[in-house]
Amino acid sequence: MDQHNHQSTTSGAVATAKPLHCIVKLGGAAITYKNELETINGDNLNIVSSQLRQAMILGPCHGMDWSRRPGSSEIPTVADDFDEQLQLKSKKFVVVHGAGSFGHFQASKSGVHKGGLNKSLVKSGFVATRISVTSLNLEIVRALAKEGIPSIGMSPFSCGWSTCQRNLSTADISTVVKALDTGFIPVLHGDAVLDSSQGCTILSGDVIIRHLAEQLRPDYVVFLTDVLGVYDRPPTEPDATLLQEIAVSEDGSWSVLKPQLQDVSKQVEITVAAHDTTGGMVTKISEAAMIAKLGIDVYIVKAATDHSMRALKGQLRQNIPDDWLGTVIRLAK
Amino acid sequence: MDQHNHQSTTSGAVATAKPLHCIVKLGGAAITYKNELETINGDNLNIVSSQLRQAMILGPCHGMDWSRRPGSSEIPTVADDFDEQLQLKSKKFVVVHGAGSFGHFQASKSGVHKGGLNKSLVKSGFVATRISVTSLNLEIVRALAKEGIPSIGMSPFSCGWSTCQRNLSTADISTVVKALDTGFIPVLHGDAVLDSSQGCTILSGDVIIRHLAEQLRPDYVVFLTDVLGVYDRPPTEPDATLLQEIAVSEDGSWSVLKPQLQDVSKQVEITVAAHDTTGGMVTKISEAAMIAKLGIDVYIVKAATDHSMRALKGQLRQNIPDDWLGTVIRLAK
Repeated sequence: MDQHNHQSTTSGAVATAKPLHCIVKLGGAAITYKNELETINGDNLNIVSSQLRQAMILGPCHGMDWSRRPGSSEIPTVADDFDEQLQLKSKKFVVVHGAGSFGHFQASKSGVHKGGLNKSLVKSGFVATRISVTSLNLEIVRALAKEGIPSIGMSPFSCGWSTCQRNLSTADISTVVKALDTGFIPVLHGDAVLDSSQGCTILSGDVIIRHLAEQLRPDYVVFLTDVLGVYDRPPTEPDATLLQEIAVSEDGSWSVLKPQLQDVSKQVEITVAAHDTTGGMVTKISEAAMIAKLGIDVYIVKAATDHSMRALKGQLRQNIPDDWLGTVIRLAK
Repeated sequence: MDQHNHQSTTSGAVATAKPLHCIVKLGGAAITYKNELETINGDNLNIVSSQLRQAMILGPCHGMDWSRRPGSSEIPTVADDFDEQLQLKSKKFVVVHGAGSFGHFQASKSGVHKGGLNKSLVKSGFVATRISVTSLNLEIVRALAKEGIPSIGMSPFSCGWSTCQRNLSTADISTVVKALDTGFIPVLHGDAVLDSSQGCTILSGDVIIRHLAEQLRPDYVVFLTDVLGVYDRPPTEPDATLLQEIAVSEDGSWSVLKPQLQDVSKQVEITVAAHDTTGGMVTKISEAAMIAKLGIDVYIVKAATDHSMRALKGQLRQNIPDDWLGTVIRLAK
C-alpha cells in the first residue's frame, strides 16, 4: 500500500513554493525537567518561544492561544486591535521537539520500542506514550502561539508516518509542506508509531529532523539543548572540552577542527570516550553529521541563551564569532 | 498534487482486514457544557467512556492513561498485573467528537469558516481553534484510555484532510484503517483545515462521520447527544414530539414512521418547523439520512443513559424494543 503513497519514501527532495529556512529541534532536556515526571521547564520554554518569534516573524504579531488554562476560570484575552489588512509575515521554520520527561516513563515501562502490539502491556504503553507526548506537544504549541507564532501541532502517527525494522519507511511530508506554504509553523515530535516488521516502535525527533532535512533542504538546522554544545566527554566531568567546530567529510567520518587538538591520539581518545558514554554524544554527532553531509550547517547550542538567539537568527552562517559558544557541524571544505 | 494521493477522494469503499463495527459521534453538547467556555462535562464523559468500553472490549482490560494531571504531583499508577499473554480484544469502533464549548469561540471570533488565511486575524483564529479542539481531543482520548480503551487521537488536519469550497476533497483514511487493523480506536474530531478555494474552513464532525461511513461501511452509527433524539420542534417547546423512527428513501427524502402522524399536514408542519430552527435538526436528519441511504442504521440517542448503552451494544439492530427512547433513521424497506 505504502509504495503508492505520494512522497512516501525517504529519497528525493520535494519542491516547495519557497525553500525551508530552518529546522529547530527543541531538545527534551532543554524544555522539560528531565528528572521530574512530565514537568515542563516553563522559564526556558518561554524564552525559547520568544527567541523563535524574533527569528521567524517579521513585523507585528498577536497572541494566538485563546484558550482557558485547565482549572482557571479566566476568559482568554484576544487582541481587539487586529488590523484587517495586516498580513503575518514569517520565515519558514519547522519545529521538532523531543520528549524529555514526557513519554519516556510510559515507553520504557511497556517496551514500546521493542514492538509486540499483540501484548496488552505494549498496546497500553503505546496509548499511554502517545497521550504523554501529545500533551507536551499541545503545551509547546500553546507557548509558541501565545508568543504570536502560527504554530500547528502535527503528530507523526496522525501524519501516517511509520517504520519498518525501526527505520522510517512511510513519511509523507505533503501535509507539512502545505502547512508551511500557507504560512504556518509545523510542530512535530518524537512519537510512538506503527512498524511493519515488529508492530510498533518509537520514532525519535532526531530521525524526524534528518528526514525533513533530506526532503526540504533547509538553510540550517539548530539543536537547542541543555549544555553549551557537544563535549569530548560528559560535560559534568572535569576537563570536559567543548568541541566548537566539527567537519564532516563525504564518507560521513568527522574530525574536530576547533579547538585544535594536540595530537592524533587525542582525537582517538574523543572517539573512545564518545563510545563509552550512553551513546548520547555519538548519536548526536552522527545524526548531525548526516545532515551536515547534505551541505546543511548544524548548530548545537544551549537553549535560552544569547548563543541560541544568534544561531536561530542565522547569524553564524557567514562566520562564527569568537565569543559564540556552541558546536558547529558542517561539511568539510 | 492531491489527485495522486492514495485513497484521497470521497468515492469508493476501502477494504479492511475486518469490517468496521460502529462509528460513534460524541456530540459536543453531550460531553461539554455548551454555555461554559472550554468546560468538559466530566460526569457524562466518564459514563460515556464506560459504556463505550462495555460495547467495545471483550474480556479484561487495564487503564492506559499513565500521565500526570496538570498541577498534580501524583505519579500515575500502572497496573502491575499485566498478563504477558493477554491480548486485548476489541470490536472495531471509530469515535468522532464535536467541539461543544471548545473551538466555537475561537472560530467565530475570527471567522475561520469563511476563510482568508492572508488575514492575520483568520490565521490567528485558525491556530487558536486548533489549540482548543485538540485540547478537547486529548481530554477525550485520556478519558477513554483511563477506561481501558486503546484510543488514539487523530486530527483531520494532521491526517492531511482538506476541503475545496468547504466540501471534503482530500481525506485519505489509510492511517485510520491502519490504526483499526492494529487494534486501536481512532478518535477524530471536528477541526480547522485548509481549503483549496478559500484558504481554510471548519470541517465538522458530522461530515467526517459521513465520509468514514461511506468508505468503511460500519454496521451502524450512533450519535450521542444531550436530548433523547430528534424532535419535531426544539425539545424545549411544549408539545415537542420525539420522532422515534424515520425512513429514508433512495432519493434521500425522509418520512416519520413512528409516531404515526395523524395526517399529511402534520408531516409538512414538521418539515417547516425543522427549517424554522437554527438548522440543528434538519442538518442532523440530513447528515443521518445520507448515511442511512447506504443501508447503515443510524441511532440518535441521549448520552449516558440506558438507551445509549443499548444502541452502542448494537442491541437495536434486529428490533427496537418499545421501551427504548431515541431516534432510528434507516433505509425504507
